[in-house]
Amino acid sequence: MSKIVLALGGNALGSTPEKQLELVKTTSAAIVDIIESGNDVVIAHGNGPQVGMINLAMSLAAGADDKIPEMPYPECGAMSQGYIGYHLQQAIGHELEKRGIQKNVATIVTQVVVDENDPAFENPTKPVGRFYTKEEADKLQAEGVGVFKEDAGRGYRRVIASPLPERIVEIDTVRKLNRDGDIVITVGGGGIPVIETPEGLKGVPGVIDKDRSAAGLAGEIGADVLMILTAVDKVCLDYNTENERSIEKMTVDEAKEYAAKGEFAPGSMLPKIEACISFLENNKKGKAVIASLENAKPALAGDSGTVIIP
Amino acid sequence: MSKIVLALGGNALGSTPEKQLELVKTTSAAIVDIIESGNDVVIAHGNGPQVGMINLAMSLAAGADDKIPEMPYPECGAMSQGYIGYHLQQAIGHELEKRGIQKNVATIVTQVVVDENDPAFENPTKPVGRFYTKEEADKLQAEGVGVFKEDAGRGYRRVIASPLPERIVEIDTVRKLNRDGDIVITVGGGGIPVIETPEGLKGVPGVIDKDRSAAGLAGEIGADVLMILTAVDKVCLDYNTENERSIEKMTVDEAKEYAAKGEFAPGSMLPKIEACISFLENNKKGKAVIASLENAKPALAGDSGTVIIP
Repeated sequence: MSKIVLALGGNALGSTPEKQLELVKTTSAAIVDIIESGNDVVIAHGNGPQVGMINLAMSLAAGADDKIPEMPYPECGAMSQGYIGYHLQQAIGHELEKRGIQKNVATIVTQVVVDENDPAFENPTKPVGRFYTKEEADKLQAEGVGVFKEDAGRGYRRVIASPLPERIVEIDTVRKLNRDGDIVITVGGGGIPVIETPEGLKGVPGVIDKDRSAAGLAGEIGADVLMILTAVDKVCLDYNTENERSIEKMTVDEAKEYAAKGEFAPGSMLPKIEACISFLENNKKGKAVIASLENAKPALAGDSGTVIIP
Repeated sequence: MSKIVLALGGNALGSTPEKQLELVKTTSAAIVDIIESGNDVVIAHGNGPQVGMINLAMSLAAGADDKIPEMPYPECGAMSQGYIGYHLQQAIGHELEKRGIQKNVATIVTQVVVDENDPAFENPTKPVGRFYTKEEADKLQAEGVGVFKEDAGRGYRRVIASPLPERIVEIDTVRKLNRDGDIVITVGGGGIPVIETPEGLKGVPGVIDKDRSAAGLAGEIGADVLMILTAVDKVCLDYNTENERSIEKMTVDEAKEYAAKGEFAPGSMLPKIEACISFLENNKKGKAVIASLENAKPALAGDSGTVIIP
């Protein structure tokens, strides 16, 4: 039996509530497969598309109706934790019930402390929300909605700062429930980014990388495995070239070497690799796995995915 | 030392994120006063203005931008739990820190089961969101946004169904954290209303009365006191007439008698009284208190507010 932090990517969730309700069924089946094998699971998840959608919707509505307030990014992040957590806990609860497994599932609204001097605030890079044409993006940027950048040939998206996570505020609650064998959903969207001030914690606009928060979480609760579930089956070298080949296993040193050579795309595979490295550097007996949602269970047994070891 | 369920009314929260961040400071000071006296506290809160605002904003944005989805009411309720819970836990955390009290605070995203045959679904009565003129309300109703009704001479508001709570899905998690002395924020907005189906729980449009859910919660965790905090200091007879007089103490039988005589306004004081009665009928050693947020601490000592006993 292992203690596992599962980090769910965008493909485990959905772009509309209807699609998300469908997708979380498959996601929950994969998660409960792992639980049924006797593992304790804590779930982290992304929220890029959802928080971008919520923030834009609130912004458009505030522009159209003077009694609807502008909603700052941290508050939108908190909303997305409620929204996504609700769907996940409902679907996981049903999957457990179907299999006759008695376990509690709960979503904890989670703040994560970041450094207000994090250089990320000077240079927003994290794409959120939907894609726009150049014309649409220019218009929204001119209207002050935010900063928009071109995203990998797929169109323009709003970008916001992605500061590094420093401390999970609600970690004691997560640790306690996990020790009791409960399934906890936490650090949704990487956590609500807050800074420490003399007047207490204060929300700041940003999206913390959910894999980095998941790595911090895994360290804090003493997890055996950090498992990052994404759209691809394995980490690849020479990705998207004729020399492409997948990696079954690598050490932290090898991973660092490949990263230094530019093998992993920034904003895509690179932060996942970095998250695994940061977990393993603090957990010398730990194991990190990057795999597809579909192959989560075989990947845990070493029969799929990419395993990274210290 | 008592175990107390505090139910916070709309005046403890705010109509914009900025106002809410200000208001929750006062709210948190009142809550921590009670905690500092040695009591264990679980917090329930309303969400009428907030969930109405979120739902309307999402609806307006979906109408203006075809890539923004319509957001159903239960999902908006889940968002409001994240949004309000985040502000409350942040402010309570700071107030505890200022006073040197070591306690965890956590918001649990909470589903509450209702009966799909609850007659409330046939006759929506719960006002949500902001006020409109008759013309605005007629226009929105014609656009299919929802049903609007006149609200006590103050204008028109959207009304939705308010079914009775039957079961708090995440109650085990709440009970466990409460037993450990943690401060739990739960059943926000009365809880996300769900019905039981062969395919698991399913969200339904509605707003569950938060005082009724708080009463159920108080029963489930074996609370000594259900404390409903609202805008008035005491429950009154002949309210808003020249014969108006306040009640310091009454029994369940007296409360029922006054209610039968129509002393308490439906949709306002009546559901609070009914919530107290339902708690006390199942907890013969319990005590219910209705008081203003400002006088919460003296009310607990019997020096303010209205006390109801079995």
